[in-house]
Amino acid sequence: MTVVEASTFSSGASFLDAPTGDRTAPVCILGAPMDWATTNRAGAREGPAAIRRASRLLLDGDHPVHGTNPASLGLSDLGDVPVLIGDIAESHRRIEDAATGLAHLCTLGGDHSVALPLLRAAAKRHGPLGLVQFDAHTDTWDENFGQDLAHGTPFHHALEEGLIDPKRTIQIGIRAPMDAKLLRDTVLSRGLTILSAEDVHDAGADAVAARVIEVVGPGPTYLSFDIDALDPAFAPGTGTPEVGGLASWQARAILRRLAPVNFIGMDLVEVAPAYDHAEITALAGATMVWDYLSLQVAKLRVGA
Amino acid sequence: MTVVEASTFSSGASFLDAPTGDRTAPVCILGAPMDWATTNRAGAREGPAAIRRASRLLLDGDHPVHGTNPASLGLSDLGDVPVLIGDIAESHRRIEDAATGLAHLCTLGGDHSVALPLLRAAAKRHGPLGLVQFDAHTDTWDENFGQDLAHGTPFHHALEEGLIDPKRTIQIGIRAPMDAKLLRDTVLSRGLTILSAEDVHDAGADAVAARVIEVVGPGPTYLSFDIDALDPAFAPGTGTPEVGGLASWQARAILRRLAPVNFIGMDLVEVAPAYDHAEITALAGATMVWDYLSLQVAKLRVGA
Amino acid sequence: MTVVEASTFSSGASFLDAPTGDRTAPVCILGAPMDWATTNRAGAREGPAAIRRASRLLLDGDHPVHGTNPASLGLSDLGDVPVLIGDIAESHRRIEDAATGLAHLCTLGGDHSVALPLLRAAAKRHGPLGLVQFDAHTDTWDENFGQDLAHGTPFHHALEEGLIDPKRTIQIGIRAPMDAKLLRDTVLSRGLTILSAEDVHDAGADAVAARVIEVVGPGPTYLSFDIDALDPAFAPGTGTPEVGGLASWQARAILRRLAPVNFIGMDLVEVAPAYDHAEITALAGATMVWDYLSLQVAKLRVGA
Amino acid sequence: MTVVEASTFSSGASFLDAPTGDRTAPVCILGAPMDWATTNRAGAREGPAAIRRASRLLLDGDHPVHGTNPASLGLSDLGDVPVLIGDIAESHRRIEDAATGLAHLCTLGGDHSVALPLLRAAAKRHGPLGLVQFDAHTDTWDENFGQDLAHGTPFHHALEEGLIDPKRTIQIGIRAPMDAKLLRDTVLSRGLTILSAEDVHDAGADAVAARVIEVVGPGPTYLSFDIDALDPAFAPGTGTPEVGGLASWQARAILRRLAPVNFIGMDLVEVAPAYDHAEITALAGATMVWDYLSLQVAKLRVGA
Amino acid sequence: MTVVEASTFSSGASFLDAPTGDRTAPVCILGAPMDWATTNRAGAREGPAAIRRASRLLLDGDHPVHGTNPASLGLSDLGDVPVLIGDIAESHRRIEDAATGLAHLCTLGGDHSVALPLLRAAAKRHGPLGLVQFDAHTDTWDENFGQDLAHGTPFHHALEEGLIDPKRTIQIGIRAPMDAKLLRDTVLSRGLTILSAEDVHDAGADAVAARVIEVVGPGPTYLSFDIDALDPAFAPGTGTPEVGGLASWQARAILRRLAPVNFIGMDLVEVAPAYDHAEITALAGATMVWDYLSLQVAKLRVGA
Amino acid sequence: MTVVEASTFSSGASFLDAPTGDRTAPVCILGAPMDWATTNRAGAREGPAAIRRASRLLLDGDHPVHGTNPASLGLSDLGDVPVLIGDIAESHRRIEDAATGLAHLCTLGGDHSVALPLLRAAAKRHGPLGLVQFDAHTDTWDENFGQDLAHGTPFHHALEEGLIDPKRTIQIGIRAPMDAKLLRDTVLSRGLTILSAEDVHDAGADAVAARVIEVVGPGPTYLSFDIDALDPAFAPGTGTPEVGGLASWQARAILRRLAPVNFIGMDLVEVAPAYDHAEITALAGATMVWDYLSLQVAKLRVGA
Repeated sequence: MTVVEASTFSSGASFLDAPTGDRTAPVCILGAPMDWATTNRAGAREGPAAIRRASRLLLDGDHPVHGTNPASLGLSDLGDVPVLIGDIAESHRRIEDAATGLAHLCTLGGDHSVALPLLRAAAKRHGPLGLVQFDAHTDTWDENFGQDLAHGTPFHHALEEGLIDPKRTIQIGIRAPMDAKLLRDTVLSRGLTILSAEDVHDAGADAVAARVIEVVGPGPTYLSFDIDALDPAFAPGTGTPEVGGLASWQARAILRRLAPVNFIGMDLVEVAPAYDHAEITALAGATMVWDYLSLQVAKLRVGA
Repeated sequence: MTVVEASTFSSGASFLDAPTGDRTAPVCILGAPMDWATTNRAGAREGPAAIRRASRLLLDGDHPVHGTNPASLGLSDLGDVPVLIGDIAESHRRIEDAATGLAHLCTLGGDHSVALPLLRAAAKRHGPLGLVQFDAHTDTWDENFGQDLAHGTPFHHALEEGLIDPKRTIQIGIRAPMDAKLLRDTVLSRGLTILSAEDVHDAGADAVAARVIEVVGPGPTYLSFDIDALDPAFAPGTGTPEVGGLASWQARAILRRLAPVNFIGMDLVEVAPAYDHAEITALAGATMVWDYLSLQVAKLRVGA
Repeated sequence: MTVVEASTFSSGASFLDAPTGDRTAPVCILGAPMDWATTNRAGAREGPAAIRRASRLLLDGDHPVHGTNPASLGLSDLGDVPVLIGDIAESHRRIEDAATGLAHLCTLGGDHSVALPLLRAAAKRHGPLGLVQFDAHTDTWDENFGQDLAHGTPFHHALEEGLIDPKRTIQIGIRAPMDAKLLRDTVLSRGLTILSAEDVHDAGADAVAARVIEVVGPGPTYLSFDIDALDPAFAPGTGTPEVGGLASWQARAILRRLAPVNFIGMDLVEVAPAYDHAEITALAGATMVWDYLSLQVAKLRVGA
Repeated sequence: MTVVEASTFSSGASFLDAPTGDRTAPVCILGAPMDWATTNRAGAREGPAAIRRASRLLLDGDHPVHGTNPASLGLSDLGDVPVLIGDIAESHRRIEDAATGLAHLCTLGGDHSVALPLLRAAAKRHGPLGLVQFDAHTDTWDENFGQDLAHGTPFHHALEEGLIDPKRTIQIGIRAPMDAKLLRDTVLSRGLTILSAEDVHDAGADAVAARVIEVVGPGPTYLSFDIDALDPAFAPGTGTPEVGGLASWQARAILRRLAPVNFIGMDLVEVAPAYDHAEITALAGATMVWDYLSLQVAKLRVGA
Repeated sequence: MTVVEASTFSSGASFLDAPTGDRTAPVCILGAPMDWATTNRAGAREGPAAIRRASRLLLDGDHPVHGTNPASLGLSDLGDVPVLIGDIAESHRRIEDAATGLAHLCTLGGDHSVALPLLRAAAKRHGPLGLVQFDAHTDTWDENFGQDLAHGTPFHHALEEGLIDPKRTIQIGIRAPMDAKLLRDTVLSRGLTILSAEDVHDAGADAVAARVIEVVGPGPTYLSFDIDALDPAFAPGTGTPEVGGLASWQARAILRRLAPVNFIGMDLVEVAPAYDHAEITALAGATMVWDYLSLQVAKLRVGA
Repeated sequence: MTVVEASTFSSGASFLDAPTGDRTAPVCILGAPMDWATTNRAGAREGPAAIRRASRLLLDGDHPVHGTNPASLGLSDLGDVPVLIGDIAESHRRIEDAATGLAHLCTLGGDHSVALPLLRAAAKRHGPLGLVQFDAHTDTWDENFGQDLAHGTPFHHALEEGLIDPKRTIQIGIRAPMDAKLLRDTVLSRGLTILSAEDVHDAGADAVAARVIEVVGPGPTYLSFDIDALDPAFAPGTGTPEVGGLASWQARAILRRLAPVNFIGMDLVEVAPAYDHAEITALAGATMVWDYLSLQVAKLRVGA
């Protein structure tokens, strides 16, 4: 059979067509297909498959700004964690187990509750972490509708368990009604830095990125990107949309200015394909991960 | 303001615009909005709202065959059980609690796991029940992917707990691959009667109804209708579609021939609106409940 | 430019790519793009455009059963009647005006209220008509939610005005709840013949066609085809779907057995594209019109 | 049954789950489900139900900027006006009737023609009003395609009837082709202030809000928000989309700077769910109403 | 990491999660992702990926009728042929090349033109073949709109090249207008057997299967399944839908009665995911392949 | 029949309802319905029909900025070129043939490969052209996956053939990964000017327009607008979406500042309706063409 490079519509199923199954790779990709911690629309369990499929559009070539190719990082896609249907705590244990011992991990969610076991695994390796969180919600509730492990709670627990340092935590895109009182009463007093969506619309990417770099400093830092940070026009395929969010170009512009941040891992969560259209949400998610990976290459190159 | 009957696009939010909140009503409607026991596509948590909304098309008038109107039953819509996100066992406890003590209950799911607490509540009142189950799957597994309370398991537990009588249990529309070995090894040996989808296509409604009546006999009997008994063409909005299912007219034709059965309650489960189109699945679900209710009126009238 | 037959994706906008604007043509096509007489979901105003577009799939070739090509009838597409937004009575006047004086007319709706002015125009030419109506609803109400010209009323008025002969009227596919009492109290006493959807499922196309031919006899007869006669699986794109309807093959099988009927015109109504998917409803509508036209060619050929 | 707060997927059907039916409430919500005055795509009759359902996402908590909760206003949802299908004038009479005598009303449309009877009712109470109109179209035509009460005409009539003061009227987001000549010939000469969509993109929220406050002054003012003021990317579910509109964050940014305006009521119109995707248009509409209500609370608090 | 069986939403990307890349496997799966030979709607290039993804629902368990599991055949998924965009002839050469030398091949299309190179490869191994073709169209044109290798022509060329034996060829489901004259003038005179969709609706699965077995006899036979054999209600996601087609249960019922046929390979073509909804077309396609594979296991077992 | 202006839902099928078929018209519209040169999602063959249909919303009135009406240009819609399915080179020959000899041509694609024959025809008349290209991709590859005429290659060939002058070529919105290395290695060295999407977000419309005018100068210039220049939120209906693109208002703002440019023709390509929602992509495309035409009227008026 003549060897010809395949078209994008023939690409494989791993993220960026990466090799699979090597837990010793410099950077691993992992799916966390659970959505039973969601409070509104479900469906994020199909997020990892959709993001992987959408990544075929990003296969060939370098990042337009960084001029780098994530393939040079030595990626390995580990597939999906075998989560336990309808059991949040046990699923979290399996996610933490799967994430432990990896050098650098990008996780594809799944609902945002998966950030908790991921932070547990990362903090075991790195100690308390800085956090850059793109999100419409603070996710610092102590429970949602009675469920203390729901997708609105991971950062409450991460703070309680000392996995993240509140002084080195910054949340970007916050605008959900249910967070207003929470912010006033609890979050701000804990020392977190909050940039609302309106702050981003008003201040611009340069100012936001500068603030992020200032807050997280040089220490090890985790990126948690909830796709609902984007406006529903850019990310309809998610469970808890909030009007007035970021444009995708704003998120990308901020992200690519974060080269000084010492990222040690990330997650991209809350892509719910059943509510997506023409893959625009899945592609936005895949693009954010790809931007992050390209940024890591750029940093490695600089560091070399 | 002139008093004029509202159009169907203005109808209220309870099922068939029924009065709400009266647990002493002769027939109650209850939503069980959980989907964390599903094994494939999620979204059935939005089923109760979608079925209620679709029922506006069935508001005005009598059943075309029975000539009866469910409103005459004295319906009350009790709203939704406050299930606990991501906790199957606790959600089941709350559903059982909500279902206990009601005279006659029609439950709108939610995933099929809710049939277990509903049968527990019904069996407390009536003793072991006959079961008429429309479904693509037997749902008699002892676990799904490690979860023993998943939506493929309720009738295993119902049999184990003696809630249903296997000799008085009949399943209609079965065709899922994963059930083939199960049927051979376990289900049939327990004494259940299985009519595959192909059996229905071959035998016709008269023969199927006769077989149902023969199997369940005159004792108290429960109807569990999983919308995936219908073919995906008729019910795309569901989590575990299987090709080759029943046409909606076949299900209706069977159902309306079951006047001799002594039904004491029912559920309609697995409507997942995110995968629906133009409400056809939600409307199919609402129609099956409406057919059931119309049948009960007909029986009451005969009994009077 | 080389002259090459265009692909179906390049076809023109008239029905079957017919010539346009000739009111003296043997058979005319007319759009009646109104939907303000609908009681539930709107959108049928876009039906004529969608049906014309869908007809590109039927352009090339003969009818598989009749072996005829509608193009041989000498079609002319007259475009759409300039209806008056939100004014049913005036729109009806304009439709009747546009339909008057044509030799043989196929109208693309639009909601079913357009059948009334169309019957007025036809009865002026032919006297009282027989009626073959495919529909989920009898549409013989005297008003809907206070509106006496709504889409559920045309045949009430047609009967009152003597446009159709009740003894020569047959309705096929009836199954809507709101019609049950109406049927019992009014319709049947007027002498109409009703075949429910279940009657069709039970009796089959041969028996139904025979009954139609028997009822309408040799006199001039009008065909009114409401796309909701089909089950929502086959025609999701309509305003008032009812579960349990005809398969498209059943409708086609009946239709093609009606060669003995002396049809003098028809309408195809209630296609609402906003609720359609992948054009399946619009194509079903276009196919019914095409079947009808092919049948007329077959009759002309026989008559010649 | 254990009392547990319900999840957002179980919320009730009234706007923000408000109590229903009290016409003496400080602020009332009313649905006006008509779409027979639309000139292009229909479907806005389903807008009120969709906006109410979407409001479940805004239930819990305070406004992120104002720190207020609309529930404190004492809302009551009055349901939908029983409009008359296909009769604009009579429907307008019923809407005016339903709106008369209420203290402060937020109406969910329905097409934009409903603003006329709403302004009639409001002007009866307050005299000539200032008007802040978000819209892609001026809606000041004297007729559309022959219909003088169509959805492109309400403000022509409101001006003619003296319901609004042209000097205190400002329209924001205007960009429709059909308005260009109208603006040149008629509208501007009447003294209205027009800010095109491009003006908003160029000037920013601060400048726009300042201009609004300047134009409407301290007198009683009505807000009419046509969802097509937003770009189709943010509000696909509407009947007359125009490319180049406002981002949702722009509209929100303007709105929340209007605290000095003395609003006495509002409408949110032209949400057409059949063209929506993943509820993003309905949610945008619900959010604008919620922003407005939150603003009123903030003003009340300041006033206290 | 605890080893737990993954859920269906975590399944791999090969068909039925089969091992990949072994051309010596007893049965191979191959994707042929081209759609530039289509005459109407494009998009079948994404068919192979969609069918593989949909096959996750068929992973676990045996065939309900045959009691067999395709995994026991020793499947290998070879991925997709690297077709050449916009070049039919060269793409066909690559497909033939990829298909040559394999023991038994199931190909996932792609448009129906791929059947030609697949038959060339099969005939090299087996000599002239019998053909069982499910299709709405005969696909025996000598050109479509000037393109002699378009998707309506493969069987014309296969006949011309002697790849299939007309006396051992049977086409099932034929109903397209453009074929009527062709059938009359050409196809039937060549000796093919044609069963229209109406023939299937009238005769039933037993009679159809008997006729197939009679026509193709004991010689080596190829199955070509165009998904548009199914009605658009069951398979909206295809390029050239025709109203009045087979129900999925009819196709399955016929297929499973074909155990006596000596099949040596098959293709499943014309699934176009952009027009699909909730994966029902892709799942129907995957199910037909799975039925075919299960049938082969049953035959092997009988043969053993 | 009363003559009344038809509603937008009744408009004809030519672009802006223009007269048809006059190749001597001052400005012609032409469809180029091919998509077999696409590398990812197909479907652009349905672009011309969708853009024409969407143009009904732009029929009545003048451009809001220019105050002009394209109808005054003397448009004629020539319909679609009869392209040859699956044969890029021959289709290009037919497109070039159809475009040759026209005074001023606006072409509706179709995939971007059609720009090559269109530039060939234009350069025959005008000599080497300046080029203003809105696009996510440079489309200057020498081949895509082995196909040298694929939709990523037209401007490579146009440069090689001397149809466009690299010094007078500017590309706006570039952001695709696969172009990064290409830009570095080839494109920039050829002298093209590239403005990335980020450049547009940062610099604003005034600066971008000034740069365009500076680059292309006063010579004859061609506009090639690939709809994927817009962000997927604004243009989901396209084959190769890239996250982070232009808002529609940005593109419009740039375009309307280009009055000084001496445009001699344009194309609008890559609208793929199967991936569109609520026509927002088709309407965005139609609006860009309408903006361009309005701009030409404004220039003619100035020139007069």
